[in-house]
Amino acid sequence: MMAESPRRGVPEATVGRLPGYLRALTELSETGRDSVSSDELAEKTGVRGAQVRKDLSILGSYGVRGVGYDVTRLSDQIAAELGLSQVRPVVIVGIGNLGRALASYSGLATRGFRVVGLVDNDPAVIGSVVDGLVVRPVSALDTFTELPDPVAVGVIATPTAAAQEVADLLVRHGVRSILSFAPGVLRVPADVHVRAVDLATELQILAFHEHQRELADEGQDAG
Amino acid sequence: MMAESPRRGVPEATVGRLPGYLRALTELSETGRDSVSSDELAEKTGVRGAQVRKDLSILGSYGVRGVGYDVTRLSDQIAAELGLSQVRPVVIVGIGNLGRALASYSGLATRGFRVVGLVDNDPAVIGSVVDGLVVRPVSALDTFTELPDPVAVGVIATPTAAAQEVADLLVRHGVRSILSFAPGVLRVPADVHVRAVDLATELQILAFHEHQRELADEGQDAG
Repeated sequence: MMAESPRRGVPEATVGRLPGYLRALTELSETGRDSVSSDELAEKTGVRGAQVRKDLSILGSYGVRGVGYDVTRLSDQIAAELGLSQVRPVVIVGIGNLGRALASYSGLATRGFRVVGLVDNDPAVIGSVVDGLVVRPVSALDTFTELPDPVAVGVIATPTAAAQEVADLLVRHGVRSILSFAPGVLRVPADVHVRAVDLATELQILAFHEHQRELADEGQDAG
Repeated sequence: MMAESPRRGVPEATVGRLPGYLRALTELSETGRDSVSSDELAEKTGVRGAQVRKDLSILGSYGVRGVGYDVTRLSDQIAAELGLSQVRPVVIVGIGNLGRALASYSGLATRGFRVVGLVDNDPAVIGSVVDGLVVRPVSALDTFTELPDPVAVGVIATPTAAAQEVADLLVRHGVRSILSFAPGVLRVPADVHVRAVDLATELQILAFHEHQRELADEGQDAG
């Protein structure tokens, strides 16, 4: 058995929607709801109803006609699929405004993650306390990666120029999942998974749609 | 002609890759390069070469065998496709750590956007200066939306509980493109485009892959 091959095929697009379903189910559970229809889940997540049913069937979950899905059972199943039955430790590298925002984001704790380490290379920042954690120098990374429960995810919130070096460092420390806020592609070994969030990219995609509407409006005015 | 129908069909996935191509081309241009092969563009953007050629052919760009693509011409074409020939004004609502990080992100200015307004409802924050801009109260939103060159994109960096209210407000002020950092679905009219970036979702997707590897490792140990 190859270590790289997935256990079974959950399509990447389905994986991308599971966190949204889980968030919606958690909200329903908090309001005391026992069951939910696929159409209600669809409305709460902005996904089509047929897609919700297809995604959940891939996990082996089928709603009961007229009743829907059991909220607790489906939550547990999605959480297990996402590997959230254990709390995953996170280290954040780069404690500027973005790193601080991430460190104090309460949504992480409630959704399966615990920030265990904050790291920066700026002497003016090292030693300061953010959300109860002392910012450590980069040389202290092994403090977090050699814990009995080592860091699962490294978050890169440094300036772009430092991102590749930080990625290399995280990989050397055994971190296999990286969330990067730096634009551009990080070079990592094949067994390391990177997700990149680039704010300018998101804005440019919005600009594309804005531009399409402008062209359509012009066409309408001319027509 | 319907205002909503796109001018022609550029697939959403292709649109999502255009910002990456443009960033790579800008870097090449800055180092004085005139032409680039699809394979080099592929390497710089983490996209397969065949996909690069397909995406660019959708825009009507074909590389010349043995020469590749003209860097300047292709940049201009992608920028035009993304509607970046004009600088698009951005207003950021919610000036906590995340809003500050966005306000001072230099990547926006170099990639077609200008932050023209910072808005918050906290009296302790209103009046403070972030990256040269004074934070204004929410009631001042119309100052930005009634400019000759009105706000193109509204960024929501508020706590989750406020996000829907802020979205409603932006829509009332005529903003048709929203980038939201709040988890969950925003209800907006059909002609408003929303992109959502949820950090916990990104981490949960990484957790899924981490979990798959753990299961594969266990399978390997057992086998």
